[in-house]
Amino acid sequence: MPERVRAGIVGASGYIGGELLRLLLGHPHVEVAAATSARLAGRSVDTAHPNLRGVTDLTFVSPETLEPVDVLFAAAPHTQTMARMPEFLGLAGLVVDLSADFRLRDPAVFARYYGAPHTAPDLLGGFACGLPELYRKELTDADRISVPGCMATAAILALAPAAAAGLIEPDVVVDARTGSSGSGATAGPANTHAERSGALRVFAPAGHRHEAEIAQATGLAVRMTATGVEAVRGVQVLCHVRLTGGAGERDLWRAYRERYADEPFVRLVARRRGPHRLPDPKILAGANFCDVGFAVDGRGGATLVAALDNLVKGGAGGAVQSLNVRRGWPERTGLAFPGLHPV
Amino acid sequence: MPERVRAGIVGASGYIGGELLRLLLGHPHVEVAAATSARLAGRSVDTAHPNLRGVTDLTFVSPETLEPVDVLFAAAPHTQTMARMPEFLGLAGLVVDLSADFRLRDPAVFARYYGAPHTAPDLLGGFACGLPELYRKELTDADRISVPGCMATAAILALAPAAAAGLIEPDVVVDARTGSSGSGATAGPANTHAERSGALRVFAPAGHRHEAEIAQATGLAVRMTATGVEAVRGVQVLCHVRLTGGAGERDLWRAYRERYADEPFVRLVARRRGPHRLPDPKILAGANFCDVGFAVDGRGGATLVAALDNLVKGGAGGAVQSLNVRRGWPERTGLAFPGLHPV
Amino acid sequence: MPERVRAGIVGASGYIGGELLRLLLGHPHVEVAAATSARLAGRSVDTAHPNLRGVTDLTFVSPETLEPVDVLFAAAPHTQTMARMPEFLGLAGLVVDLSADFRLRDPAVFARYYGAPHTAPDLLGGFACGLPELYRKELTDADRISVPGCMATAAILALAPAAAAGLIEPDVVVDARTGSSGSGATAGPANTHAERSGALRVFAPAGHRHEAEIAQATGLAVRMTATGVEAVRGVQVLCHVRLTGGAGERDLWRAYRERYADEPFVRLVARRRGPHRLPDPKILAGANFCDVGFAVDGRGGATLVAALDNLVKGGAGGAVQSLNVRRGWPERTGLAFPGLHPV
Amino acid sequence: MPERVRAGIVGASGYIGGELLRLLLGHPHVEVAAATSARLAGRSVDTAHPNLRGVTDLTFVSPETLEPVDVLFAAAPHTQTMARMPEFLGLAGLVVDLSADFRLRDPAVFARYYGAPHTAPDLLGGFACGLPELYRKELTDADRISVPGCMATAAILALAPAAAAGLIEPDVVVDARTGSSGSGATAGPANTHAERSGALRVFAPAGHRHEAEIAQATGLAVRMTATGVEAVRGVQVLCHVRLTGGAGERDLWRAYRERYADEPFVRLVARRRGPHRLPDPKILAGANFCDVGFAVDGRGGATLVAALDNLVKGGAGGAVQSLNVRRGWPERTGLAFPGLHPV
Repeated sequence: MPERVRAGIVGASGYIGGELLRLLLGHPHVEVAAATSARLAGRSVDTAHPNLRGVTDLTFVSPETLEPVDVLFAAAPHTQTMARMPEFLGLAGLVVDLSADFRLRDPAVFARYYGAPHTAPDLLGGFACGLPELYRKELTDADRISVPGCMATAAILALAPAAAAGLIEPDVVVDARTGSSGSGATAGPANTHAERSGALRVFAPAGHRHEAEIAQATGLAVRMTATGVEAVRGVQVLCHVRLTGGAGERDLWRAYRERYADEPFVRLVARRRGPHRLPDPKILAGANFCDVGFAVDGRGGATLVAALDNLVKGGAGGAVQSLNVRRGWPERTGLAFPGLHPV
Repeated sequence: MPERVRAGIVGASGYIGGELLRLLLGHPHVEVAAATSARLAGRSVDTAHPNLRGVTDLTFVSPETLEPVDVLFAAAPHTQTMARMPEFLGLAGLVVDLSADFRLRDPAVFARYYGAPHTAPDLLGGFACGLPELYRKELTDADRISVPGCMATAAILALAPAAAAGLIEPDVVVDARTGSSGSGATAGPANTHAERSGALRVFAPAGHRHEAEIAQATGLAVRMTATGVEAVRGVQVLCHVRLTGGAGERDLWRAYRERYADEPFVRLVARRRGPHRLPDPKILAGANFCDVGFAVDGRGGATLVAALDNLVKGGAGGAVQSLNVRRGWPERTGLAFPGLHPV
Repeated sequence: MPERVRAGIVGASGYIGGELLRLLLGHPHVEVAAATSARLAGRSVDTAHPNLRGVTDLTFVSPETLEPVDVLFAAAPHTQTMARMPEFLGLAGLVVDLSADFRLRDPAVFARYYGAPHTAPDLLGGFACGLPELYRKELTDADRISVPGCMATAAILALAPAAAAGLIEPDVVVDARTGSSGSGATAGPANTHAERSGALRVFAPAGHRHEAEIAQATGLAVRMTATGVEAVRGVQVLCHVRLTGGAGERDLWRAYRERYADEPFVRLVARRRGPHRLPDPKILAGANFCDVGFAVDGRGGATLVAALDNLVKGGAGGAVQSLNVRRGWPERTGLAFPGLHPV
Repeated sequence: MPERVRAGIVGASGYIGGELLRLLLGHPHVEVAAATSARLAGRSVDTAHPNLRGVTDLTFVSPETLEPVDVLFAAAPHTQTMARMPEFLGLAGLVVDLSADFRLRDPAVFARYYGAPHTAPDLLGGFACGLPELYRKELTDADRISVPGCMATAAILALAPAAAAGLIEPDVVVDARTGSSGSGATAGPANTHAERSGALRVFAPAGHRHEAEIAQATGLAVRMTATGVEAVRGVQVLCHVRLTGGAGERDLWRAYRERYADEPFVRLVARRRGPHRLPDPKILAGANFCDVGFAVDGRGGATLVAALDNLVKGGAGGAVQSLNVRRGWPERTGLAFPGLHPV
């Protein structure tokens, strides 16, 4: 009989919550004890997540009724989570937060990017970053984990090996593209199908919030834009960088291979031709991979590319992977789905 | 140590072949011994199926080099499989065919729908139909299995309970919609992205080939049309039927509930409202479910609806499910992925 | 100097209103005197309709401030228009209504399909149907015009020639597919991009409202379903019919050719092969065509197909075409855009 | 009776050819005398361009039969046009070329970017650039016009005002996104719908060919990447730039307003919020606009954005606009279609 931990999910009717449910219901070491939704309390979880019909008979419960669990996944909105965190910490020995509220260590930076002061600055230092590729060691004994943003995850994994090896100049441009699920399940005039379908919407022409997370993790000076593209899931980032003097393609290969050789969820994708020569989120829906690749321009510039599913590796999957690390389970546990092609 | 059978896949570089690979590589009782591709022999399977990067290091082999295996999955083109079937039968004790060549029992019907005489009519009677919901008993000891067509699978599962219970008149209209992966991986001027994107292409306004399979399985007189819609994966059928005298919604509920109560891969989806009130392939990509539902019009008519992923339940998944039945393994083995939402 | 009439548009911030603006701003005989929007009064029309940036400097006005015009286009919501119609009739000698409120002649049928009693039944008889292909004569001297529904327009044009020539049995099944713009510009949880994208949503499995319009115009007994497909614009209907004894493909060709030979906006599309063999709304966005075609199954059945842009020929374009007829202008005036390919 | 010129189109069965046909058939001063297609000679032009059904009864003719015309539009493939140019020049007093062969003035640059030596370098100097916004004066008496590339057109119009005013550093990154029609009508394994749908395909991670055109027109040092996105039509470029010391948002506004105030086909789109705050090709299909906008990041960086329809302003529309300039007709003639919303 395998070890089992009891898990609770706060904000389980949202898109990240739905992916947490899908992944945890299939995880051999986890029992989903409670999934909260203020709006849908008492109703079947398949009301919000029709893919789970017949997979579970779980119903949403009101957040107030949540009882202690072994691990609590918090998928509450940005800027609302910080006020509720003390309560969450009282409910579980391990809290995995998927909001933005505990990602940035500096409350002043948080305030600048989120337009509101941080109300629980004392707690900021206690969170390990739920990105095992960079913070595996810290995660092994963390009690509080904050999963980075979806675009930040992609950009950090694209940039980190080159930055750490000193192969790129510190000023980088991150051009991110994202599907519509990134804005969540809430309806509004700008995200109707008729308005959003087929759009190339530059919703953050400069200074996207994830800029701060990327800078924090890599030490680089980041200028970031974000465009909504025609997709529901998926994030792709192109990092436009300059190589430091003398650095070339071989150096990049060496740095990325060394860094990611043993990573279960990072694949190097950097071929010279073919439709799949560089990372594309099209084939990553549902998978926990972050594909990373690069190309040089022969004149001292390079483009570093990464792609992932924003709701999986950029959210729920990163959270489950972090839990696996924390508990010492094989890191792929519950995360084996490889993605589909074609799709 | 679980039981393991050695499997071969013929035609493994196609879309059905790719799904067979994905499913069998994740199946605890199967070892993929060989995947053939005349065109890509010697190259990694991820050349054709980029979702399998890092998941396997299998390479394609030439069909001529295929050695005996326990089970052979044949995913060769329609009208070419019948000539190769004797060879396939010599290679494995169990052959699961995914072409159309052994679906119809009457060679005259085959000739009418496929425009070519059947060259192996003697073999037709030996194949069990790879649709466990209707033919589970035959499958438990079958050595030759023919998986039905994707649209046929959906229509048969939509119609069978009502037909068997005598609730519908025998003349039915089947209006099928399909994604572009149904036409396979071969490029042509009609299936470029620019031409096919956003199309509502009535490619079979009358007499679609799957008509014959549906008629054979249900005993109904079927008129079938098929339209290509904007999707890569997914099939949906609407069966426009008339209820027999006195039959109503309750009778339909009873018939479908009884028939499908214990089916692991058929879900009844028939609500009165909501965006997910009836089956929609959108949430089924990668899953082996066939969702089935219905609605009555209060004037003696009804619409029976079914949806599935054409490459999974309508192809590779149906084949694996049939293998599970044949070997006595739990039917869900290797087929647990529930699908994604939103996607 | 060409003749010019002054036009007003009520409900000009909606999708039909936007198309009316686009078409009327390019119409040589029309001056747009006022475009109302309660919500956006005082703001530029390009706030709601960004395609009109730089094309006009018109601003929305409050509905209360509307002054008399020569022709009033009413694009107000269903079931709200009937109460306002007396006011509209007081403002213009010619009223063209695009709501559903004055399409059905029998108030009892209206009540059954719209779930509310008709509050202005006396006015019902005074409206000519804004479908020149069937009602051109009535339109030449009409003062009140009601434009039929988008799916109804398609189905009526698909069915009318065959029905009028007695070539089909009176019981028909209409299977309609529609893009997301048909539900209008209002946001809701079911029409977000993430939920609606890629869907095949059978939102009206039986008894869609346009059923009554089709029956009224053709005299047939209609069973109608409607499915939302992945598209913003576009309607396609498949009419599943049975031919009367002896009728065949030649008879259909004769009937459709005779009926539509001189129609400026109906094209016969019924080829034996090719990606464009039958009507497809993909190539009709922005155009006022309704393409019509058919195919027989050799066993007494036929599929009649029609496609159009729901906001143009199924809405604003039909309204402008009706105005052209009413004023005696060449029917193509202001409606020359032929559509795009590929798109 | 308006002046009429007789026009010929070489390569009229391609996508650019189809748009030339659509635009010229609606142009009051042009008569389409001949449309060539080696493959489809003798067949109706609507075989390739189904949107033109009922709009014209023109048939394709073989290129060899082409007789002299007033203006010849050449839409032949890159690297094949240079060999045929002498023939084209013999057929018409005015040649408008839409290939890449005569866009670059320096044959060495051509050879580097197109991988083949230029075989008609003597002719390079004789072509005016078909971009009226920058080269209107040259176009008024040009006999040879070369229309710039679609992505180059967008990037040049985004960059030129800032570059000319000295507001940006000379090193710029151009991140371009394009729909699938940009690769033309030829089928191949990488552009099937199943493969291309929903893709974010970085097909040119560095050094895209249009880089050279942008550098030539603006004098900037350009690093360019290109990604195929889910769309059939449409190009969007994001130019990541650094402002020169002291330059700010007001300077940009002044420069762009001055430069484009009187341009009929450039619209400034740079709002602070809303789904349409910056240029998006979604609303430009079929229109000849190039929308241009920008945003600053408050730290010395800016993102310049442009969007257009690659087959219109980035191809056939730019050619017709150039013809209008050359002949002294109002520049909007035949190019009035404003685009659709929503679509």
